[in-house]
Amino acid sequence: VPVEFEVTDRAAAGRLGRLHTPHGVVDTPTLLPVVNPNLRLITPRELKTLFGADILITNSYVIHKHADLRDGALEKGLHALLDWDGAVMTDSGTFQQYVYGDVKITNEEVVAFQRDIRTDIGTALDVFSTPQRTFQEAKEDMEETARRVEAAAGIKGEMALAATVQGGVHPLLREEAARRVAPHGDVFPIGGVVPLMEQQRYAELARAILAAKRGLPAGNAVHLFGCGHPMVFPLAVALGCDLFDSSAYAKYAKAGRYITSEGTQHIADMAETICPCPVCSAHTPAELARLAEYDRMRLLAEHNLYVTFSELKRVREAIRDGTLWELVERRATAHPTLLEALDVLREEQHKVQLEATEPISGRRALFMTGPHTVHRPLLYRLHERLRSRYSPPEAEKVILFDEAQRPFSESLRDRLAHHLQHGERHFIVDSWLGPVPIELDQMYPFAQSVVPRVPDAQTRRYLAGLLTAFIEERLHVPVVRDHEDAEDWTFHTQEELYADPTLTLPPEPTGPGIGRWNLDLLRVAATADMQFGRGAADALLGPQDGRQDRVRLVVSPRTMKVRNIQTEGEHVASLRAEDGLLSLTMAGARRLHAGFAMPQLRVVVTRESAEYNAQGRNVMSRFVSAMDPALRPGDDCLVVDEDDTLVAHGRVILTAAEAPTFRRGLVVRIREGSAKRAREADATTPSA
Amino acid sequence: VPVEFEVTDRAAAGRLGRLHTPHGVVDTPTLLPVVNPNLRLITPRELKTLFGADILITNSYVIHKHADLRDGALEKGLHALLDWDGAVMTDSGTFQQYVYGDVKITNEEVVAFQRDIRTDIGTALDVFSTPQRTFQEAKEDMEETARRVEAAAGIKGEMALAATVQGGVHPLLREEAARRVAPHGDVFPIGGVVPLMEQQRYAELARAILAAKRGLPAGNAVHLFGCGHPMVFPLAVALGCDLFDSSAYAKYAKAGRYITSEGTQHIADMAETICPCPVCSAHTPAELARLAEYDRMRLLAEHNLYVTFSELKRVREAIRDGTLWELVERRATAHPTLLEALDVLREEQHKVQLEATEPISGRRALFMTGPHTVHRPLLYRLHERLRSRYSPPEAEKVILFDEAQRPFSESLRDRLAHHLQHGERHFIVDSWLGPVPIELDQMYPFAQSVVPRVPDAQTRRYLAGLLTAFIEERLHVPVVRDHEDAEDWTFHTQEELYADPTLTLPPEPTGPGIGRWNLDLLRVAATADMQFGRGAADALLGPQDGRQDRVRLVVSPRTMKVRNIQTEGEHVASLRAEDGLLSLTMAGARRLHAGFAMPQLRVVVTRESAEYNAQGRNVMSRFVSAMDPALRPGDDCLVVDEDDTLVAHGRVILTAAEAPTFRRGLVVRIREGSAKRAREADATTPSA
Repeated sequence: VPVEFEVTDRAAAGRLGRLHTPHGVVDTPTLLPVVNPNLRLITPRELKTLFGADILITNSYVIHKHADLRDGALEKGLHALLDWDGAVMTDSGTFQQYVYGDVKITNEEVVAFQRDIRTDIGTALDVFSTPQRTFQEAKEDMEETARRVEAAAGIKGEMALAATVQGGVHPLLREEAARRVAPHGDVFPIGGVVPLMEQQRYAELARAILAAKRGLPAGNAVHLFGCGHPMVFPLAVALGCDLFDSSAYAKYAKAGRYITSEGTQHIADMAETICPCPVCSAHTPAELARLAEYDRMRLLAEHNLYVTFSELKRVREAIRDGTLWELVERRATAHPTLLEALDVLREEQHKVQLEATEPISGRRALFMTGPHTVHRPLLYRLHERLRSRYSPPEAEKVILFDEAQRPFSESLRDRLAHHLQHGERHFIVDSWLGPVPIELDQMYPFAQSVVPRVPDAQTRRYLAGLLTAFIEERLHVPVVRDHEDAEDWTFHTQEELYADPTLTLPPEPTGPGIGRWNLDLLRVAATADMQFGRGAADALLGPQDGRQDRVRLVVSPRTMKVRNIQTEGEHVASLRAEDGLLSLTMAGARRLHAGFAMPQLRVVVTRESAEYNAQGRNVMSRFVSAMDPALRPGDDCLVVDEDDTLVAHGRVILTAAEAPTFRRGLVVRIREGSAKRAREADATTPSA
Repeated sequence: VPVEFEVTDRAAAGRLGRLHTPHGVVDTPTLLPVVNPNLRLITPRELKTLFGADILITNSYVIHKHADLRDGALEKGLHALLDWDGAVMTDSGTFQQYVYGDVKITNEEVVAFQRDIRTDIGTALDVFSTPQRTFQEAKEDMEETARRVEAAAGIKGEMALAATVQGGVHPLLREEAARRVAPHGDVFPIGGVVPLMEQQRYAELARAILAAKRGLPAGNAVHLFGCGHPMVFPLAVALGCDLFDSSAYAKYAKAGRYITSEGTQHIADMAETICPCPVCSAHTPAELARLAEYDRMRLLAEHNLYVTFSELKRVREAIRDGTLWELVERRATAHPTLLEALDVLREEQHKVQLEATEPISGRRALFMTGPHTVHRPLLYRLHERLRSRYSPPEAEKVILFDEAQRPFSESLRDRLAHHLQHGERHFIVDSWLGPVPIELDQMYPFAQSVVPRVPDAQTRRYLAGLLTAFIEERLHVPVVRDHEDAEDWTFHTQEELYADPTLTLPPEPTGPGIGRWNLDLLRVAATADMQFGRGAADALLGPQDGRQDRVRLVVSPRTMKVRNIQTEGEHVASLRAEDGLLSLTMAGARRLHAGFAMPQLRVVVTRESAEYNAQGRNVMSRFVSAMDPALRPGDDCLVVDEDDTLVAHGRVILTAAEAPTFRRGLVVRIREGSAKRAREADATTPSA
């Protein structure tokens, strides 16, 4: 296989990846600057040294059209023609056909030509469906494209094939188009989207990407064709795009247009340069205006590339940090039409789609930054799991607290103590992230989040609906607001707090303590069920009856938080301080293995792999034969062989739908293999 | 006067200004980098050449404490000590008193010392009120500060005095503190705010700034003491701060902290630098980590300064563009606590305060970017004016349209035509910016705005309330939704439009035209009343009865929009294509002068000035003796002498409350003076 893709980190549906090509490894998400073989404002070498470009794109149709370029490329190869030894992708003339309508080359010719000039990734001559194309017209375009892609696959030889997904503005066609080209491509561009971006129809762009992603294999890089404006990168990456390309840096420079991550301006309208790049730090707009035209163009192109590549760095950092959604929401305020795209994401269908690959926790606090935050896939998942996985403790009524400082059990300690003394046992915080049972208050992102004192009314209304549904479906006892039940307390409603800015929430409590052990045991049990599925608490801790005697919780003397969980003397799991989720031990994995049937919680590996995994080596994608579809990135999982023998446990990187589509990279990072433990047991047996 | 301030442009309550000092003119808003005389990571000269700093701040208490520095400063002067010939401000030890609590210098000593070392702007030793100070405690601090500032004013000599506004977290005290120090200062720092910024209590910070601004004269620069994080600049500038200072660039660099306009990160946590500055374009975090400590600190400090100064450039450009509120709303998504500050701005009291200086139009489209947009001062003004200035045309019912493409009268042309044919005469668009009578659809920002297809529910709820109030108070005829009245039309509600993404609003109309003349005359009349006050249409166009025959509208043959308005053969005003507002001619000014009593619409100038203004020269602040308090920046006004003789007309730059507080700068940019016109009339009379 000429080009392979692996994923090394992820956030939202965005991936940090490595694209392996015959001319080096390309870190993604990234931009392929368009190189015009006839006009070199910035040379390929400079694109590498100044901006860090690892891969370029150029147009094979343009090269083919000019006899000297064509002959040179055929003779020396494309890399020599461009004086570039990194990866190169070529486009096929589709866009020229769309813009000028007079492309005189066939699909077979242009694919063979790309093969012959030894491009790394060549593109079939697909049919560009404009947004104006009706469903039927776009369907015909899509079918013709699928035929051409299939034909190209037969011609391409060693070259990797970019198989473009068309379908116009019709999501059903986009998904179908993706399925049709999926078997034939190595890289999948989403095409026909330039008019949507030019007209800032970002809601339709988001629908097109989401639909294409539904039909595409996860294990290949996805390219958003013709997208090179940094304003769109966070959204497009969050929806799963890995590659972008653009001639905008040069075209805009020619037109005096100045790109920022928040839009585009005309340099002629500016009194000051508003960016810290080397060009803008050294030149005012007036100074640029006095330069010769070529020099000005060159400097503007440099500026455009600096901001474009630095936004990509920012996006990649946001993936590593787990703050990509924050970046998407922030950038969406750059234009009202970007907000429309966020509206698309909160449709149920898209929440379900995005939830399927959303990691279980992040490395930074979740920020609530507007009406879209509460619809984020992670919160959607937790709201759903509260309904499907959470078991309320036995109690005669539920005490409902208003939003408070995090973690809730600490800021509400005095009040909890009061209610506990009065025999209450079930507490829920009506938080700005949704209902949070007090025993889940340390779970990501309930403790690891920052919310405004009072969020917008749309969020509040949505939360009120969530709470009502949760109460009606899951709680069959009366629900009483804390303040309604506590006349003897100095208490303020959220409205009062908001009306009086000098009031703050109560300081560190000094009242009587809460029976720690009870809350902590509830916490471990509820976390286990939320994280692994209903029944996990019983599997890990034994039946509720007698659990207090059976389970011992090791508490950190410094933080007073639960660290380790021992059941019948066996260390079964640890509670992570950073995200309040459980890390299994092998003993815990064995208990879950016994408690949950195949394929639940499992990643099933081939016998060949099982031996290695038992030694503690990670699970590679090509050795996975089945997997629980409920597992999510970051989840702890059980690695079993095809006979369901537990060989290891570890953390999931790819989901069940994704794993089989990757030829490279890890599916599970093993924490502990059974063989290692077995050897240790062997080793210690004699001396025991 | 040693330091004078003038305002050259404005947006929100933010000002583009020029601070004239004995060591040069400083463009504001800007940052004063803190120079530590003992430690020069970056020299003053480099601060100028690399980052464009025009003014520095250093600490006179620290200089005074070190004998060698003190003697050097007294001997050579502060500028020589720092090797810097630009402007310098000095602080007094107040912050050191707050942090370390052991400052051994009196107010009199430190002020005299600052005077003697010839600083440009020296600061009294004020009493730092922490947020913990109760109202009574903070009141005592404030009174002591006021006494010290008054004492300092008696000592300062040639030096400009920075008179700090304290008052803790108590807005009433902040305002009172401002009034107390106002007579004695040349520059006004807002002090005691560092703990608020450290604790990200931005709502209280916004209240403190707004309260201080209520008590301070507009004609002096306002300094937000200790604020140097670019994340806060857009908000602080929009509320009227002109100067910032910070040692953060160096202190953060020392701690490995990396500043961005959206927050702060630790360089050790980063895999890639996420900024296009010269440092980040050339170094990865790993490369920085390998450098010697001093070199790494130096480069991080450079990065911190590049992003800090480039955010100031961005803020200044946003003032020029009229997009400062857009920038504020965008940056507020960087942290939930910044959103809380926006909540403060939508309190009625603050809307009133901010409306008073909000310019009447902007150079770019208004963007709706979230639940706060609809509360912007400009929209608040227009909603208020609809209730107080707008006169509904006579009609038996009102047809209400849903939000549509701009301008509304064009996108709704077919439907308007239909209703006109059925005898309807009054049309209002229930737009996402509030109710818009169809005849005001070209007025800024109704046509010059971009809104999402469906805004958030909080905005929708607020708009529903506005519309209800408008209908109840102002319309005394039935209101009928367009679609309820038009069964013969293919029509979709906004909900349907939203539910079906493939539907778009109707394309360019081809149906029968609207009686242009009627709508245009309504437009001119309604615009006149909204812009100048109720009665302006009668004054400019004569009574409604017979207006059609009296008024001639000159329409651009290209755009088909009204350009000039002639009443009884006299050109009285032009309708500006860019913002749909009226520009008066001298004939129009005369009509308004006759129609509105003193001091309405007037800027009253001294006799000395009147002669010059009649020649077309601009009105300077020190010659204004009175002014209509209803005039807003950008408004057309009548310039009259003290006998109410009309001498000129022009555009207002400063408001009535502001003008008397400025010693420099323009109050009115004259469009036309009576003398010039008189001369022209004289010149043409013989040949006529």
